[in-house]
Amino acid sequence: MRSIEELAKAAKRSSEVLRSVGTDQKNQALAAIASQLKEEEEDILKANSEDCEKAQKEGMRPILLDRLKLTPKRIDEMIEGVDRLIELDDPIGEVLEGSTRPNGLEIRKIRVPFGVVGMIFEARPNVAVDAACLCLKASDACLLRGGKEAILSTTALTECMRRALVKSGLPEDTICLTQDTSHESADQMMQAKGLIDVLIPRGSARLIQTVVENSKVPFIETGVGNCHIYVDEWADLDKAIAITVNAKTSRPSVCNAAESLVVHSRVAGEFLPRLVKAMPQVTLYGDGRAKALVPTMETASEEDFGREYLDLKMSVRIVDTLQQAIDHIAKYSTGHSETIVTENLKNARIFTSQVDSAAVYVNASTRFTDGGQFGEGAEIGISTQKLHARGPMGIKALTTTKFVVWGDGQIRL
Amino acid sequence: MRSIEELAKAAKRSSEVLRSVGTDQKNQALAAIASQLKEEEEDILKANSEDCEKAQKEGMRPILLDRLKLTPKRIDEMIEGVDRLIELDDPIGEVLEGSTRPNGLEIRKIRVPFGVVGMIFEARPNVAVDAACLCLKASDACLLRGGKEAILSTTALTECMRRALVKSGLPEDTICLTQDTSHESADQMMQAKGLIDVLIPRGSARLIQTVVENSKVPFIETGVGNCHIYVDEWADLDKAIAITVNAKTSRPSVCNAAESLVVHSRVAGEFLPRLVKAMPQVTLYGDGRAKALVPTMETASEEDFGREYLDLKMSVRIVDTLQQAIDHIAKYSTGHSETIVTENLKNARIFTSQVDSAAVYVNASTRFTDGGQFGEGAEIGISTQKLHARGPMGIKALTTTKFVVWGDGQIRL
Repeated sequence: MRSIEELAKAAKRSSEVLRSVGTDQKNQALAAIASQLKEEEEDILKANSEDCEKAQKEGMRPILLDRLKLTPKRIDEMIEGVDRLIELDDPIGEVLEGSTRPNGLEIRKIRVPFGVVGMIFEARPNVAVDAACLCLKASDACLLRGGKEAILSTTALTECMRRALVKSGLPEDTICLTQDTSHESADQMMQAKGLIDVLIPRGSARLIQTVVENSKVPFIETGVGNCHIYVDEWADLDKAIAITVNAKTSRPSVCNAAESLVVHSRVAGEFLPRLVKAMPQVTLYGDGRAKALVPTMETASEEDFGREYLDLKMSVRIVDTLQQAIDHIAKYSTGHSETIVTENLKNARIFTSQVDSAAVYVNASTRFTDGGQFGEGAEIGISTQKLHARGPMGIKALTTTKFVVWGDGQIRL
Repeated sequence: MRSIEELAKAAKRSSEVLRSVGTDQKNQALAAIASQLKEEEEDILKANSEDCEKAQKEGMRPILLDRLKLTPKRIDEMIEGVDRLIELDDPIGEVLEGSTRPNGLEIRKIRVPFGVVGMIFEARPNVAVDAACLCLKASDACLLRGGKEAILSTTALTECMRRALVKSGLPEDTICLTQDTSHESADQMMQAKGLIDVLIPRGSARLIQTVVENSKVPFIETGVGNCHIYVDEWADLDKAIAITVNAKTSRPSVCNAAESLVVHSRVAGEFLPRLVKAMPQVTLYGDGRAKALVPTMETASEEDFGREYLDLKMSVRIVDTLQQAIDHIAKYSTGHSETIVTENLKNARIFTSQVDSAAVYVNASTRFTDGGQFGEGAEIGISTQKLHARGPMGIKALTTTKFVVWGDGQIRL
């Protein structure tokens, strides 16, 4: 078994080769990956069913088991994802700005690959293919570290992609997977400064927190969402009901689902009883004033307001002013997505200006915070940090820039 | 004395106010700072001379004492810097991209302030004014932590700026300075995640290394430069001499000064003896082959090739191919600035493509890596990291983005 250091060094050497590989060759390699995945479909499914059997025996919850499971349809979806990347514009080489200085120096700021991207993920094996191919299109090598429950699946997928790379004349270590799924391997990746250029954790809040607290490698914090809906005193309550039901119930387990409801006191008396009827399957955790209006509510503890339930649960707070709503959000939000429901332009403008989150909505569901919905060709995750990338991250988040300066002997006077 | 936590919280509250302050009011506050600095010049110089006296008594080296010292001319330069910021375009509110989606959602990616910028710096008191005013123009509050030897100077400057803020109707805690110059205060800033949005260390390699290793707050790594000059076999040796002398000797103490020379073996025999004559004041540390050509050279140890001397010293390595030069740079560079001297287009293209540094030059001195030289209106530092900003950082490096999305009741289907 190759160590994290060996793998990271191998990926780094590959990344050096990738710097001079053009768009055509990258697209040919992606096409080769797509057809290799089709060719090896049976073996991949077999490896995955072994993972699933083992996980079932060990009592994995059905919702996680569903994430782990591959089917012919899911493999087709992966392949479609790879095909879409072929269509995507190559981000590398884009000239972002430039000038010719008075002394004749020609300065250009050019988009270049990061080098080596480290991905730490959990049970979903498709992340291995999505991430590796997105990195390849950005001319980055990658070092993948998936969850132990998916190791046979991710190994089958990675080996398949590596065979396609070799067929395309690219180094197989452009895509590396560690077989070590212990905490130590994740930790070693976080310490591999100088070998791994950026680390992207994808998975639970706990995984992301571990990276934030321990990584010496620069990282991008993704996807923890305590998303808020604020129902203003000027809200159209029909819209407010539709948006809340959609944001809370359409897919409660994802990071852009709403977790917290803030309601202006002037409309709470009408809105909350209607909402309870519209989504009876959701358990509400309210403050004292909300409970006074809907006595069947649970009582919210202080922790409830900060919680990312990822479940059919929602906290409820009543406020008397827009500013109180903004302050509540500032206190408890994770900076992912928040929405105001209002017909009042001034309040909408104050909310969008004052709320400091990656995506701030007026009269729309928080569920739209997603690369596909925002019109990005592909998504590597949703950044909740302010440095480098914020919100849904497309392929450009996997690149950096450098200044290339051409001269003719200029010296600084 | 207010604690770091109290100061960071005060700065954060100010940053919330700054979100809705327009360009005119920011420029008025900058103008007020400029005239307040002029008004209090005498007091500032007095505070500074106390710092200098104390430092001199304690045996501070002349080069550091010079950095600490303020003069009427240096205060005028600070004021000119503030005036230039007034002229600078306001980065806040710029729409970077946007689209209207098929469902009618109007998505815009907008440049917004970071919030609170933490600056850790050392002996140069002018950094307090430069940094605070650049932050103000970017609508960021700042928390400054300078070196203990400059505390009276930075306090006088900060109090002066705070008086100007109050006169302009802005919160005085837009600019905060800690009086605690211990290691603990720097450490507390590195732990203040959630209060400080980004940390920018400016100073010695050791300070920057401490931040890189310990900060939980996102940071921007700045300014350690082991910059290389590669003299290719196709170099115009006159240009190579001029560039090397300029990059090494014009200001040896700065991060864009060259520290390492890599010379192709075919030209080394002619080039090195000429170079020694052109800059006799520089001590060269050569590998065996270089020493064979210039026996008066010192012998380079392995450490010499990785050293940022910041002095009239330079390491020298002889190589037989361009690839060996690129490999040498990849191994020892800090990713700041490197230059190739060559008349061969193919080699220039390979070098600029393969060398992975913030600024890569053809036939020019590394000394040009500087915000002013690159035509940026102001500079907050030179980033040697790949995330967020790379190379000379202008005011945009002090901003982030958010997505603002306007809808009319849209839900995700």
